[in-house]
Amino acid sequence: MDHISTAYPRNQWWVAARPSELTTSPFERRILGDRIVFFRTEGGEATALAGLCPHRMYPLALGKVMGDEIECGYHGFRFKADGKCSLVPSQDTAPSAVGVRRYPIVEQAHFVWIWTGDPALADPALIPDVSAYGPAANGAAPGWRVIEHRAYHAPARYTLLLDNLMDLSHLAFIHARSAPINADLPRIPIEVRQEEGRVELLRRAQGISSGPMEMGLFQYTGPINLHLESRYLAPAMVQTGLLTQAVEDPDSTRQLAYLTYMHALTPETPNSCHYFVTEGRDFHLDNLSLDETSRQMHDILGQEDVDVCTLVEQALQNGDIRQPEVSVKADAGGVLVRRELAAQIAKEAAPLEAVA
Amino acid sequence: MDHISTAYPRNQWWVAARPSELTTSPFERRILGDRIVFFRTEGGEATALAGLCPHRMYPLALGKVMGDEIECGYHGFRFKADGKCSLVPSQDTAPSAVGVRRYPIVEQAHFVWIWTGDPALADPALIPDVSAYGPAANGAAPGWRVIEHRAYHAPARYTLLLDNLMDLSHLAFIHARSAPINADLPRIPIEVRQEEGRVELLRRAQGISSGPMEMGLFQYTGPINLHLESRYLAPAMVQTGLLTQAVEDPDSTRQLAYLTYMHALTPETPNSCHYFVTEGRDFHLDNLSLDETSRQMHDILGQEDVDVCTLVEQALQNGDIRQPEVSVKADAGGVLVRRELAAQIAKEAAPLEAVA
Amino acid sequence: MDHISTAYPRNQWWVAARPSELTTSPFERRILGDRIVFFRTEGGEATALAGLCPHRMYPLALGKVMGDEIECGYHGFRFKADGKCSLVPSQDTAPSAVGVRRYPIVEQAHFVWIWTGDPALADPALIPDVSAYGPAANGAAPGWRVIEHRAYHAPARYTLLLDNLMDLSHLAFIHARSAPINADLPRIPIEVRQEEGRVELLRRAQGISSGPMEMGLFQYTGPINLHLESRYLAPAMVQTGLLTQAVEDPDSTRQLAYLTYMHALTPETPNSCHYFVTEGRDFHLDNLSLDETSRQMHDILGQEDVDVCTLVEQALQNGDIRQPEVSVKADAGGVLVRRELAAQIAKEAAPLEAVA
Repeated sequence: MDHISTAYPRNQWWVAARPSELTTSPFERRILGDRIVFFRTEGGEATALAGLCPHRMYPLALGKVMGDEIECGYHGFRFKADGKCSLVPSQDTAPSAVGVRRYPIVEQAHFVWIWTGDPALADPALIPDVSAYGPAANGAAPGWRVIEHRAYHAPARYTLLLDNLMDLSHLAFIHARSAPINADLPRIPIEVRQEEGRVELLRRAQGISSGPMEMGLFQYTGPINLHLESRYLAPAMVQTGLLTQAVEDPDSTRQLAYLTYMHALTPETPNSCHYFVTEGRDFHLDNLSLDETSRQMHDILGQEDVDVCTLVEQALQNGDIRQPEVSVKADAGGVLVRRELAAQIAKEAAPLEAVA
Repeated sequence: MDHISTAYPRNQWWVAARPSELTTSPFERRILGDRIVFFRTEGGEATALAGLCPHRMYPLALGKVMGDEIECGYHGFRFKADGKCSLVPSQDTAPSAVGVRRYPIVEQAHFVWIWTGDPALADPALIPDVSAYGPAANGAAPGWRVIEHRAYHAPARYTLLLDNLMDLSHLAFIHARSAPINADLPRIPIEVRQEEGRVELLRRAQGISSGPMEMGLFQYTGPINLHLESRYLAPAMVQTGLLTQAVEDPDSTRQLAYLTYMHALTPETPNSCHYFVTEGRDFHLDNLSLDETSRQMHDILGQEDVDVCTLVEQALQNGDIRQPEVSVKADAGGVLVRRELAAQIAKEAAPLEAVA
Repeated sequence: MDHISTAYPRNQWWVAARPSELTTSPFERRILGDRIVFFRTEGGEATALAGLCPHRMYPLALGKVMGDEIECGYHGFRFKADGKCSLVPSQDTAPSAVGVRRYPIVEQAHFVWIWTGDPALADPALIPDVSAYGPAANGAAPGWRVIEHRAYHAPARYTLLLDNLMDLSHLAFIHARSAPINADLPRIPIEVRQEEGRVELLRRAQGISSGPMEMGLFQYTGPINLHLESRYLAPAMVQTGLLTQAVEDPDSTRQLAYLTYMHALTPETPNSCHYFVTEGRDFHLDNLSLDETSRQMHDILGQEDVDVCTLVEQALQNGDIRQPEVSVKADAGGVLVRRELAAQIAKEAAPLEAVA
């Protein structure tokens, strides 16, 4: 099962946080192995610095923001938002060579994006264009209600979560109790499309029986068409969508609901990751109690996926695998995503300029 | 202390479970390093399969038995009792190459036995003949009352438990409070006998004073003869026995009680094991409250032994040993058991056919 | 950050315990990696033996003192205070070759000192002369009130605690809430002195404003002179002192208080240590409620320092360091201590007699 890689490409924009998380109270998050302190200066600048004071390695997140600087809580060294040391209390001037690494970050589309690779390559134009997958991904678009779900921490390599998201047949098993869905789902044929850096996977069922959602939210009990989609976007985002149509008569359909989720995965370490989910819906826009219901439901669903991947991660880490992994036709999408990631990683490992 | 080996022979029948544990609710147990799912089909067949679905490595024990198959809880793959995949939901026919390893198991003499070695060698005639050590080992023999104690999990190599069982002088120290015994016990001379694959160890005391058991159960306070025995049976079982005789006058004795225990040890990992105990007694056969007393007492005694071995295991794993291990005459039995095991392991490591 | 060494010199007297800890109830403490059992014989002899019975490696600390011997709790082997085995229950005479290592120990100056190196070199005259740093270190000197604080266990290499103690500017940050001190402290110039095996570090401030201690204990609110000192004594002790003088007028001062602490660090493992602190004060000698206040305060302060070092230890062990460590002028004392230790360790690693 070596191809469930623990590796990740560094020269990418990764989701590090929600914009609302960055305040003048610093907090630490580990991203692609690096301990990073996040805060806003009193001037409002979103800042990400190496998390450990280079003097005696105390976590800067335990210090405090003072004006536009962060002060280490151990011996009072101060650092500016660009990472340069501005004060060593015991001497008149801070040594100019002292400082911590600053990480490029950008706030865009419900997320704080970070670049952990070569800073010279950190072009904001490379931030994944989540709008490619519907207006909801970009926030308060008219006709959409958008919810930021809580960030999950998964003690599992991010590629296991990608696997999970690229095969939604698991909905009928893992989430069978928490979110009942049509039991025929796993048998629906799968269409796969691949473009540069993207993989799309679609299950379309015609005239199947309606389920709890259609009945509960729309009082509709007739046959429905169901579209279930997983769309991968490099480096590690997946948009999932659930479209249901009421089949009123053989020749006409009416759209009931389109539910879309933008899932962003960010490696914490080779064997763990952060998992951010934004949800958009195009119905019952003014029903705020539905927001709360949705939040509670996703609390359960998201954790169920994390738990599945944690169990598989443990099996991999403990060396419990005694038989080679088997993939079937339905795994085509997930396998393409693995290859796409492998290509990104290989590109970084290659010499910067190939000799002709 | 290298000769307290963590190794185990694979071409052996090991105790995996109690027959009553196998139901249509699957459960997982790790045996000789392998994660194995145990269940009964609805047809009643006791089944042991490799514990992880070969598709995406989710534990089969979290799935469910459906008829004579087990269904994986992640994407719904199904496997028959012979391990072959019978259903992949997303396609019409299951790929014939897909399947999981089936482990030979046999229900016999209060235990479910498993063979984790070469399946071609799994001859049920090789199951250790526990009846060699008294009728109680075989269950409801007339004249015996038999109790299955709970299974213990010990975070210690199984050889430490064997050591513990092959030197019962520890009764006077480790169990001094929980099961008081004649304090002269450790000073009784030891007889050792060895046959092929067996080691017997006997302490016989004549005319020593009676203890709490004789007084409590038989209202007898005179002198007694005491026989204390440990009998090893490959690969890792020990029968221990306690025989007490009332010495009425210098020329006549009357048997008070014979208590016999069949201890079965099964490696979970190199550094941990499962520990099953069956108890037989030939007295107070109809006293069911004595069953409960015995269960409660063994709950304590068994855990005391597990705790001792856990402490030694930790010392071994932490590299705390600063002096070579010392063995004395009383360790002759335990040392023979270590050699017997080493021989079994060496036999497996040897080429299958020696060249003349 | 390789120079924050995890190594320690063995041919040194280290603080193992407080004299009051040694009783006829044995206890185990790990010192320089070795598990050691400490007890007093019924005759009163302070004893330190290898902690594991050489028979089957059970911890002797779980046995009991019987007269002038300790009995193993597993099979009843007994050992004299010199480590020789005196009894194997199953045989008439104990094999003369059986025994456990005895460690030289000495009770002196509020501490039990242990020698874990070559016993032939264990000269009590080499015990660190803590009296070099004031009478309080030697106990009930007239004019001093002495308090033994609790022993801390730190999951951090002892050198991190030495670093912490050799830069008291951390008082203004780490202990800012629990023990408020003049905020200008980190800016006071530092004097460093080095003699053989000793490093002294002094911060002297003239005419700064008084703080909570001066106000609370002496009802003094005028300007003060403050002396803050850290004095290293090989292998791993630091005396810290806080002297405050009331500046009554430009030409006269009155000593308010001298608070002195003897900190003794002893490696438990390469990545953890024991931390013993003795406090002496030369004021309010008869105020016993001040003893209790002082104990409660040091419970917090000591733990704060341990917590800081634990966080840094974790960063080091997890490989979280991405930038080389930076030292500034104020670290001169701490850096000298690191060099002093490195020299002691190098001396042990060198051949015993250099060839000319």
